[in-house]
Amino acid sequence: MASQKSEDTAMSPKITGELLRLLRQAMRSCKYFSEPIHAYIIPSGDAHQSEYIAPCDCRREFICGFNGSAGTAIVTEQHAAMWTDGRYFLQASQQMDNNWTLMKMGLKETPSQEDWLISVLPENSKVGVDPWIIAADQWKNMSKALTGAGHSLVAVQDNLIDIVWTHRPERPSTQLRVLGVEQTGISWQDKINVLRAKMTERKITWFVATALDEIAWLFNLRGADIEYNPVFFAYAIVGMNSIRLFVDLKRLSDPALREHLQLNAPSKPELSIQTFPYESVYGELQAICAALSPKDKVWICDKASCALTQAIPKAHRTPIPYTPLCLSKAVKNSTEIRGMKMAHIKDAVALCGLFAWLEKEIPKGTVTEISAADKAEELRSQQKDFVGLSFPTISSVGPNGAIIHYRPLPETNRTLTVNEVYLIDSGAQYIDGTTDVTRTMHFGTPSDFEKECFTYVLKGHIAVSAAIFPNGTKGHLLDSFARAALWESGLDYLHGTGHGVGCFLNVHEGPCGISYKTFADEPLEAGMIVSDEPGYYEDGSFGIRIENVVLVVPAKPKYNYRNRGSLTFEPLTLVPIQVKMMNTDLLTQKERDWVNEYHRKCREVVGAELERQGRREALDWLIRETQPIV
Amino acid sequence: MASQKSEDTAMSPKITGELLRLLRQAMRSCKYFSEPIHAYIIPSGDAHQSEYIAPCDCRREFICGFNGSAGTAIVTEQHAAMWTDGRYFLQASQQMDNNWTLMKMGLKETPSQEDWLISVLPENSKVGVDPWIIAADQWKNMSKALTGAGHSLVAVQDNLIDIVWTHRPERPSTQLRVLGVEQTGISWQDKINVLRAKMTERKITWFVATALDEIAWLFNLRGADIEYNPVFFAYAIVGMNSIRLFVDLKRLSDPALREHLQLNAPSKPELSIQTFPYESVYGELQAICAALSPKDKVWICDKASCALTQAIPKAHRTPIPYTPLCLSKAVKNSTEIRGMKMAHIKDAVALCGLFAWLEKEIPKGTVTEISAADKAEELRSQQKDFVGLSFPTISSVGPNGAIIHYRPLPETNRTLTVNEVYLIDSGAQYIDGTTDVTRTMHFGTPSDFEKECFTYVLKGHIAVSAAIFPNGTKGHLLDSFARAALWESGLDYLHGTGHGVGCFLNVHEGPCGISYKTFADEPLEAGMIVSDEPGYYEDGSFGIRIENVVLVVPAKPKYNYRNRGSLTFEPLTLVPIQVKMMNTDLLTQKERDWVNEYHRKCREVVGAELERQGRREALDWLIRETQPIV
Repeated sequence: MASQKSEDTAMSPKITGELLRLLRQAMRSCKYFSEPIHAYIIPSGDAHQSEYIAPCDCRREFICGFNGSAGTAIVTEQHAAMWTDGRYFLQASQQMDNNWTLMKMGLKETPSQEDWLISVLPENSKVGVDPWIIAADQWKNMSKALTGAGHSLVAVQDNLIDIVWTHRPERPSTQLRVLGVEQTGISWQDKINVLRAKMTERKITWFVATALDEIAWLFNLRGADIEYNPVFFAYAIVGMNSIRLFVDLKRLSDPALREHLQLNAPSKPELSIQTFPYESVYGELQAICAALSPKDKVWICDKASCALTQAIPKAHRTPIPYTPLCLSKAVKNSTEIRGMKMAHIKDAVALCGLFAWLEKEIPKGTVTEISAADKAEELRSQQKDFVGLSFPTISSVGPNGAIIHYRPLPETNRTLTVNEVYLIDSGAQYIDGTTDVTRTMHFGTPSDFEKECFTYVLKGHIAVSAAIFPNGTKGHLLDSFARAALWESGLDYLHGTGHGVGCFLNVHEGPCGISYKTFADEPLEAGMIVSDEPGYYEDGSFGIRIENVVLVVPAKPKYNYRNRGSLTFEPLTLVPIQVKMMNTDLLTQKERDWVNEYHRKCREVVGAELERQGRREALDWLIRETQPIV
Repeated sequence: MASQKSEDTAMSPKITGELLRLLRQAMRSCKYFSEPIHAYIIPSGDAHQSEYIAPCDCRREFICGFNGSAGTAIVTEQHAAMWTDGRYFLQASQQMDNNWTLMKMGLKETPSQEDWLISVLPENSKVGVDPWIIAADQWKNMSKALTGAGHSLVAVQDNLIDIVWTHRPERPSTQLRVLGVEQTGISWQDKINVLRAKMTERKITWFVATALDEIAWLFNLRGADIEYNPVFFAYAIVGMNSIRLFVDLKRLSDPALREHLQLNAPSKPELSIQTFPYESVYGELQAICAALSPKDKVWICDKASCALTQAIPKAHRTPIPYTPLCLSKAVKNSTEIRGMKMAHIKDAVALCGLFAWLEKEIPKGTVTEISAADKAEELRSQQKDFVGLSFPTISSVGPNGAIIHYRPLPETNRTLTVNEVYLIDSGAQYIDGTTDVTRTMHFGTPSDFEKECFTYVLKGHIAVSAAIFPNGTKGHLLDSFARAALWESGLDYLHGTGHGVGCFLNVHEGPCGISYKTFADEPLEAGMIVSDEPGYYEDGSFGIRIENVVLVVPAKPKYNYRNRGSLTFEPLTLVPIQVKMMNTDLLTQKERDWVNEYHRKCREVVGAELERQGRREALDWLIRETQPIV
């Protein structure tokens, strides 16, 4: 669970009258498109369809004021409307002024963007969008709907928001970090070889990489261009005999980096990397495509930008829902698994320290959501190879805990007390791995209802974590296990159960996950890493979530039907789950055994590290919190 | 679970050399298409994309000999290949001669039809297909793949199989049966009104009905054109002021039928039905489309035939995955539910009689799979308003039980003994409802392994049947509940868990079901009826399946999160589940309680009817088999 933060959030509405006037002027001007534009779509992404974006790409926030992670703004001559989902209704209504209409997605009465455009536009209208910001599949759907109603979707090459955005931040170009094989387990050259083998198998001649985490993973490099995500702005195009990397060339001066990429003296010609400026990707891709033979095929993710996708002639274009890099990256090798385990032990050390500190400090009445989050960051930053947080900490007390994507702000900041449930969802980037953990605690005496709900959530968490399932099972088939205990009592939670987690990469990654949404997830395989995070949210009162990061591992049940083999999960997160919050009467013996075994492992593994680091108070807390339940 | 039977099955291969020669001659002749056809596709369906088909539509069987329910044949100048799935590998290999290559779907090395065509065809080939037999969505996919490789898919209006098929059976035109409101709960006029209200809501001006069960349901009529399915060959086109029914006009002479349809004196002009010959649907639809206004939209199911779909100009065509009739039909009204309950009680009476009889007869060594199936049919036929079976009975002993879609044939027929597990999956059509039930029994002493597997299957059956889940949940989210106990021991079954069941209609119907396949199923609603039928199959040894038909009903758990309401299932099938096959130590107390409550209800409800019918032996058996377990 993580929400996006691009810059500090204000809860008073942004004044947008003048900005909208300027934008509409640009829409009408014919300077940026040959004809006037009747509507302009401002999606929330960047040119790489990143989930988290850099400040220079926060165009939707700039134009309307709303800074949540999901939302699309559309401006016409008469209207300005912004679509977002249930997580953000309150926040969006507070951050937008009355020039804007909030479109509450998921409500029956809310029109889709297409339907709304069709209802408000005069006949034969032009709807503009920046083709770099809209994904190819979204372009296709929108274009089809508009064309069907007599309008047309047009690509406006200059971004009209950038035109009206004075003082727009620069695109970041942070220093690149080289990762050796001792950290990645496999050289970038070998990753290229694996990629090319897959291309050969599918008769593909070129592959265009546009997702930032895939490019960072491929070249064993990390950056800091986007907060929380150790990635850098780049594109890559890989052919059978050439590798082209598109990146701000100033970044390539470091000798160690040049050595890593073998820029001066490549070992083999087919592993020689040609570097180009970031902006030249479109021209280069066009040049490559101009030279294609009739049978040549180019792989590109169907979520890549419309601009790059359309640079590839349709006859050569082979769009795929997940790229081979995405699939390879999801299955961690033994070096990465070792790193992820180490990162989670260090993370547990920090959290044990936090909880021991909270227990001592809360009764004094001086700890707030923000100071608790700061303390967690401080403790994590003391751990070896800490790089930064992996997402903004969700530190929430009482009713704030029921806001699923809450982030404490000065105006919402509550003090932690012994009377309310505390939920903290946090994680960090270490050079050896990425963490994401949620614990829900009570520092006084929880109510029976709080305990009951917590126990159902725990039952769901265990049902997923302990599930045994055949090789080839897709994660969405496990989602209901997390909900069964809640459902039985008429309760539920309105988010997915788990997401893929990168290794010193994005805390959210594809192509696997655990969700009721039947997106095209790929089957779970040993080595994949996902989160297991059911929850329950009582509006206005409290929030509960129990989240571990878990590793898919082989299981060895009694039988082996059709030799398919079985899988299960091994928790990587090793932080005690508060027994005080459990109604142990509601647990089966098997569930009690699971809790005890989990706590035994936390004590053994994290205890040893706390001991080594001489963190006495945290160790005492850990030992107390991992007493077996009976 | 049901397999298709079109005529009696032979297990020796059909000799096809001469037929293929004639077919290839027709393909080359340019008499049926302006150019020679290089490949001809023979799908297994009829013009209504029915699951079960009439003998005159068994073209794929005619050309290759294989008579399973699923399979597509493709004939080129050099090759003849037939694709089918794992259920039918053995049967297909036995029924086809060596002119044919069996293409085993689901195996990695098996090419798709498209890939195979592309690999064997000379450049720029024409691939022919009957546009009435191929569904619009299948045409689209196939056409796209072929076009991408330089070939083209062409519609051949005359079916080339029919050309070479001497003595092809006539299309059936059985007598139509009128159902009154006392059976259907709602008049056809009201169904038309509901349909038109949905059309108005979605701004649709015409609706084309092509699925036979939807047409039978809409007009409260039943036929017997297709074995097991009480439907009749027809099309319907409904506008806001007109209703056109396309059917063999000879069928409309019966005065009661004319009165029912108000053919002589319609009450209101907009409820007047115009009747047309079955074959004139294409011309009429063309005429309707020629008169459309620019904004007019026509609904047609995306699974309708390519021919009818393409008769609607693209600008007016609104394809939908499920028609409003399909959705309305799935939610049974109180009259239909009452009927379904009655049908299941009568069905249980027949099965209790069967099992009591088997118990007595099996030790004599005279009962075979076929005679047991015949006895089941005989007992069912004694029940009031019996019409026929709802699918061919799967009556299987020992290793035959492991063949999921087995049907006993003289050459495979085994004798029932006290040493082997017996599985019977059977059902009937009554005027008040349709049944489908599977029971797995042992008439001696089952092995520990058989009991263990049976108990896991039972745990899965109960997990689904007793599940409580929020309103709006789709059936596929429940599928894993049926598998969890099997998975935990490394076991599984390779079929879905449940399908929708019609009310005196098709035993398989959309749009709901319970399956790991993420097809676009519609959310479960109170009033829907599905099967719950997990299984386990030990190849060469035994098969286990426990199937009840269950009704979706509101549930009232402790809480009601966001006022969404909850649902659960009520078993309609009321036939004891053999306790002898259970390892009750493996059951939780909750599962034991479920079994006891289920058996109590069987005894109470079916016992009363057995009493009333004076079926003493069956009643004794029922009472013995419904003793509570402890």
